Amino acid sequence: MCSNHGNRGVVYQGPGKVEVQNIPYPELALGGRKCDHGVILKVVSTNICGSDQHMVRGRTTAPAGLVLGHEITGLVVECGRDVEFVKPGDLVSVPFNIACGRCRNCKEGKTGICLNVNPARPGAAYGYVDMGGWVGGQAEYVMVPYADFNLLKFPDKDQAMEKIRDLTLLSDIFPTGFHGCVTAGVGPGSTVYIAGAGPVGLAAAVSAQLLGAACVIVGDMIDDRLAQARSFGCETIDLKQEGDIADKVEAILGVPEVDAFVDCVGFEAHACGCHHHEEKPATVLNSAMQLTRAGGQIGIPGLYVTEDPGAIDEAAKVGALSMRFGLGWAKSHSFHTGQCPVMKYHRQLMQSILFDKVQIAKAVNVQVISLDQAPNGYAEFDGGAATKYVIDPHGMVAA
Amino acid sequence: MCSNHGNRGVVYQGPGKVEVQNIPYPELALGGRKCDHGVILKVVSTNICGSDQHMVRGRTTAPAGLVLGHEITGLVVECGRDVEFVKPGDLVSVPFNIACGRCRNCKEGKTGICLNVNPARPGAAYGYVDMGGWVGGQAEYVMVPYADFNLLKFPDKDQAMEKIRDLTLLSDIFPTGFHGCVTAGVGPGSTVYIAGAGPVGLAAAVSAQLLGAACVIVGDMIDDRLAQARSFGCETIDLKQEGDIADKVEAILGVPEVDAFVDCVGFEAHACGCHHHEEKPATVLNSAMQLTRAGGQIGIPGLYVTEDPGAIDEAAKVGALSMRFGLGWAKSHSFHTGQCPVMKYHRQLMQSILFDKVQIAKAVNVQVISLDQAPNGYAEFDGGAATKYVIDPHGMVAA
Amino acid sequence: MCSNHGNRGVVYQGPGKVEVQNIPYPELALGGRKCDHGVILKVVSTNICGSDQHMVRGRTTAPAGLVLGHEITGLVVECGRDVEFVKPGDLVSVPFNIACGRCRNCKEGKTGICLNVNPARPGAAYGYVDMGGWVGGQAEYVMVPYADFNLLKFPDKDQAMEKIRDLTLLSDIFPTGFHGCVTAGVGPGSTVYIAGAGPVGLAAAVSAQLLGAACVIVGDMIDDRLAQARSFGCETIDLKQEGDIADKVEAILGVPEVDAFVDCVGFEAHACGCHHHEEKPATVLNSAMQLTRAGGQIGIPGLYVTEDPGAIDEAAKVGALSMRFGLGWAKSHSFHTGQCPVMKYHRQLMQSILFDKVQIAKAVNVQVISLDQAPNGYAEFDGGAATKYVIDPHGMVAA
Amino acid sequence: MCSNHGNRGVVYQGPGKVEVQNIPYPELALGGRKCDHGVILKVVSTNICGSDQHMVRGRTTAPAGLVLGHEITGLVVECGRDVEFVKPGDLVSVPFNIACGRCRNCKEGKTGICLNVNPARPGAAYGYVDMGGWVGGQAEYVMVPYADFNLLKFPDKDQAMEKIRDLTLLSDIFPTGFHGCVTAGVGPGSTVYIAGAGPVGLAAAVSAQLLGAACVIVGDMIDDRLAQARSFGCETIDLKQEGDIADKVEAILGVPEVDAFVDCVGFEAHACGCHHHEEKPATVLNSAMQLTRAGGQIGIPGLYVTEDPGAIDEAAKVGALSMRFGLGWAKSHSFHTGQCPVMKYHRQLMQSILFDKVQIAKAVNVQVISLDQAPNGYAEFDGGAATKYVIDPHGMVAA
Repeated sequence: MCSNHGNRGVVYQGPGKVEVQNIPYPELALGGRKCDHGVILKVVSTNICGSDQHMVRGRTTAPAGLVLGHEITGLVVECGRDVEFVKPGDLVSVPFNIACGRCRNCKEGKTGICLNVNPARPGAAYGYVDMGGWVGGQAEYVMVPYADFNLLKFPDKDQAMEKIRDLTLLSDIFPTGFHGCVTAGVGPGSTVYIAGAGPVGLAAAVSAQLLGAACVIVGDMIDDRLAQARSFGCETIDLKQEGDIADKVEAILGVPEVDAFVDCVGFEAHACGCHHHEEKPATVLNSAMQLTRAGGQIGIPGLYVTEDPGAIDEAAKVGALSMRFGLGWAKSHSFHTGQCPVMKYHRQLMQSILFDKVQIAKAVNVQVISLDQAPNGYAEFDGGAATKYVIDPHGMVAA
Repeated sequence: MCSNHGNRGVVYQGPGKVEVQNIPYPELALGGRKCDHGVILKVVSTNICGSDQHMVRGRTTAPAGLVLGHEITGLVVECGRDVEFVKPGDLVSVPFNIACGRCRNCKEGKTGICLNVNPARPGAAYGYVDMGGWVGGQAEYVMVPYADFNLLKFPDKDQAMEKIRDLTLLSDIFPTGFHGCVTAGVGPGSTVYIAGAGPVGLAAAVSAQLLGAACVIVGDMIDDRLAQARSFGCETIDLKQEGDIADKVEAILGVPEVDAFVDCVGFEAHACGCHHHEEKPATVLNSAMQLTRAGGQIGIPGLYVTEDPGAIDEAAKVGALSMRFGLGWAKSHSFHTGQCPVMKYHRQLMQSILFDKVQIAKAVNVQVISLDQAPNGYAEFDGGAATKYVIDPHGMVAA
Repeated sequence: MCSNHGNRGVVYQGPGKVEVQNIPYPELALGGRKCDHGVILKVVSTNICGSDQHMVRGRTTAPAGLVLGHEITGLVVECGRDVEFVKPGDLVSVPFNIACGRCRNCKEGKTGICLNVNPARPGAAYGYVDMGGWVGGQAEYVMVPYADFNLLKFPDKDQAMEKIRDLTLLSDIFPTGFHGCVTAGVGPGSTVYIAGAGPVGLAAAVSAQLLGAACVIVGDMIDDRLAQARSFGCETIDLKQEGDIADKVEAILGVPEVDAFVDCVGFEAHACGCHHHEEKPATVLNSAMQLTRAGGQIGIPGLYVTEDPGAIDEAAKVGALSMRFGLGWAKSHSFHTGQCPVMKYHRQLMQSILFDKVQIAKAVNVQVISLDQAPNGYAEFDGGAATKYVIDPHGMVAA
Repeated sequence: MCSNHGNRGVVYQGPGKVEVQNIPYPELALGGRKCDHGVILKVVSTNICGSDQHMVRGRTTAPAGLVLGHEITGLVVECGRDVEFVKPGDLVSVPFNIACGRCRNCKEGKTGICLNVNPARPGAAYGYVDMGGWVGGQAEYVMVPYADFNLLKFPDKDQAMEKIRDLTLLSDIFPTGFHGCVTAGVGPGSTVYIAGAGPVGLAAAVSAQLLGAACVIVGDMIDDRLAQARSFGCETIDLKQEGDIADKVEAILGVPEVDAFVDCVGFEAHACGCHHHEEKPATVLNSAMQLTRAGGQIGIPGLYVTEDPGAIDEAAKVGALSMRFGLGWAKSHSFHTGQCPVMKYHRQLMQSILFDKVQIAKAVNVQVISLDQAPNGYAEFDGGAATKYVIDPHGMVAA
């Protein structure tokens, strides 16, 4: 397989700025580390993620020059010599977590905190600050290490291309929303509150339905996103409106509490019901304790960080939040955090898509754009568009 | 509360024969045992169950005179003095398992094997041979002991009466089918084989869908029942046809195995694909081991008995079956048996009904009949009708 | 059974003051609420608990006149008419949580947050502020409601009296410590850090050993308590010493992290390694996130409160703590809070005692005192004695 | 690394006959399949297993010439090019199941039924008939594929060599016995019946103790093995004696049932209490259903086979057994079968050994022998010696 292809990718240039640039064609290595267990993918689709926005907004220490993108689906074009079960031509979904498949955590299914892929700490991802230095996949080509372990092959390529708008969401947000629901204990008959109607929140809402939830309530402050949630049968709460959320939940359910709560917002949360939208990083967690019934579980796929240079106060800058923990304790809550281990769920969710049990693309309002439109996608998404932007670098996704 | 009401019920008269007769109005006692923790219900709906047929066919030691019926929904008309949380006028679902709520098993949620309600062995039920002597509920009135513990109150009586055809199935077959799926490990994305398309099998198929299954395959030998399964999106396999079941599964799924298998047939199983339908009590279990993937689980809500006077051979008469257990062992299967502990599931499944997430009555083809039509219902059901017969003793169920 | 017995009990008189006084002989009622499901116990042993100290120190809104005591073992002397399985003469352990056995939470095994025994909120206990108004058991006699459900009967009374110093710990601290370990994921081979070497901490350490832990490390600032922990094979860390706890863990284990962390301190935590012991309510939780490996679980049996009038700042007064939650999120931690549901564990732990698998009394250094010595026991315990005080109101416990 | 070492191994020669012979030095390949992911081990210890005896007794289709041995501990002497985390000089334990770490089952932790290492069916092992053709390890040198995934490295080589008699049991019988207990639901306070006092049975008994069991009862017909079980605190039942086992259990526990049952015998079971020891392959399973309390679980690590040419009847020849399944169903039992996935447990059990929490070698009576003594070890073991034979091919194990 020749490597004199060119390559182009979405590059972070500093706060508020991303550009599409020529970047090196990937090799089966990371710095000096050989990756004979890796493959080169021709990227079929790669999505813009809310967590990319944390970097682009300048809320992290991401360096200029970083190639972005950790939500990747692609065609295998080259296999390292140690790859045994993946073949050129396979169409595959890439979990955003990079995992070795050989360490204690991977063996326990905790691929979000693999011990061998990031010298700085457990866990790695493509194109993300502090996540191991792996090159991002919002590009024409990308390298995926430990390919036999990481990749999920679609059983029928033609069928998969027909459903690619849905399948592209297996790399991150569908499993991430699903993980939030699973850790919140959602099951048949549950009442569920989803905090946040961005793509992860909407994916969590779909996941709650797939898990059999009786009633899914989504709260947000953006009208279009709330409308999107209603489009597939969710109840919604408009947090711009005055009033206690518990009362609004009671108006829907007859009781002021839910069985399960999923925080799809994270550390950039804002206080609700006010005009200036002051950032209040613990506000969702405190709502969780208020709204979740005694004995309930709280799933927290929304990102909380260890360092937040742009935070509103000194405490929040080191990730410290003022949580009303005593309330949670009195209600015997449990709290479940961390990156979703995508591999735990992606095969099953693929089956749900292939057998037409979920319409996840429609629920999160996928919009396919070209690589050159990526900067515009970032800007619109940051503006609150009720849209999940999927980049199609090679024009392979049918209209 | 006066007790000079009359009462009428469905009474077993011997093999092949049931009659509606005058029976005593219930009292808050069983034999000499006071049941001040009990209530008297006016029966709103009470269903004929496949396991009733085992008795009526003469396959058990059930004595003539037994009042039948363990699937009961009703209005509370009288409360024992020790009942604290249930009130006259409440509309309630009764789990078919009678449970004290005070023994080790009940505390562990294993209400199907309560230690205090049947002197002969763990577990009891209404109107059933060897299950503790409790009077059956295919009647106008019935007594329910340990009412605070056993009963599930519907939150809104009017709403509940509108959905009574669905809610009546909470007393047994919906939870029973669901339990079969849960113990088989069914979840989002699973492929599932349901053996048997009687009411429990159809309820299991609906449950598998509620649990998020990607594909549900139902096998049976009766055309109408298979058509019923197809009516809500199941794949079906006609066991009257020649050929290996594994090939038929492969034709549907692309692989000859499923993730999960639910046996909704039990000990009266027949060999498939032949003309004389010889009884082969282990045939479903052996199919389960053949069709379930290595590492899969096998849920067995279908009844297997300790004594079967009508069995085809001496071994089966004491419940001994020729299982190809080595095959299951080679595939690391686990096998999950026993009566469904209805209380573990009925509240959640009620929510699924009340929030319109399942149409269980339609799936199992509920047909409402009067008490006097009960003997006819028994006969038609025994003839293989693809129908779940729901007795409406007081004409309270709207047409 | 006559009720013209007298009764005496330990009564809270205001901050820092408890007295033994004459109190009413119990009746089968609470205020106007009849408790025919209850029994009267002659108290055989009743323990002073660290959480009693929160009240006695004036850190709560407990009213003067409150009869204290929620750790109770006793002989049944009178049964209400609804009691069916408990008999006069039975020797029983009383879970400190009062539970009805009939609500959704009780049915799910969550007896620590029963919905029917405290009008103010889920969960109740004997002799405790805001926990439902039930009379405490540091007395000669006490009433236990829902006796069939709540009580654990010892199978052999003579054998039980021989082991009463151990069995008396089944009412609270042994299950509470065990629950902390279970929710922290402790199992065979685990390395465990127990924060706090008070009686609950020591009980957690014993529990970790019973669960098969490979190494149990206990941290505290009181020398006697650390010595107590070492007496049964724990490693210890003296928090009075300067230096990073992670380094001290590494000196023991070779790595600076443990598999599982149990917080047995709660909201009255103090910063370590300093002279003035300033209260820092989040310090244990923040240590938990530092010391627990990525993917580990944090069990939190230590009490965190919703109101703390005596707290050091306004935030802590409403139970809000400055948690470094981002660190926990980065390590995919889960946090498990709340009162231990004693009933989930007490039967199994009783078996462990009766079959001589644990020496819990020795581990927590049980000292039996008379009722009149109770005020002195409170004072010594508050002073940091490495002792668990067990009150013997009738002089029934052999020396 | 040169490969002109010689090699010697234990070779099956036909029913009843094993010999030590020169065999090829291993290469990083299996037939034509390259194993660049593999390593060559210098075998430090390798144990004779009861399942080897099935082959040697001629109960399988094992071909003459097969190199035996699947319980292997060794020093890494050569690494394939794809091996990244294991280094020459590492001292490692080898799980007897060979697993790729890349298939669906491995990712789910089900390494006993890996899909990529045996063309005939899921699951593979070293030196075993029908298990993939991998060369056995009762030899001086052996090849281990997928070494990064499969191997467990001991953290300190000197410490490990001191405990090598214990650590050598991590490759199979300790995890296998432990898995039996885990799947039987053994936990703190459990009463447990272990069927069979061979090495796996004794390892299960130790495991039950490590899991906190209150009372462990071991049943067998060989006096020396029963004495061995008593040596570390088990109760025993001598199955040679007349009388109902349930009565004997009741004599020990006060009740005729246990909480959990572990079948460590498998298909070569014999009827008990008789003189001729006729083989009755379902006898242990039927005892399990009799002796296990309602709601209990039955763990079945003992081997049941799909083909048994030497079986007593036609049914058993295809692995079909006459199980009294109706009894299990009436008691809501679950049955858990299959090869132990060693990797799920070996790290934790290693910790238990390294921290001196178990003395497994003493419990199973390890006896170290030379490679040349292996045929004698096979013979003595087959004769019922209460001994676990550990082969020391290089004389590295200190006396």
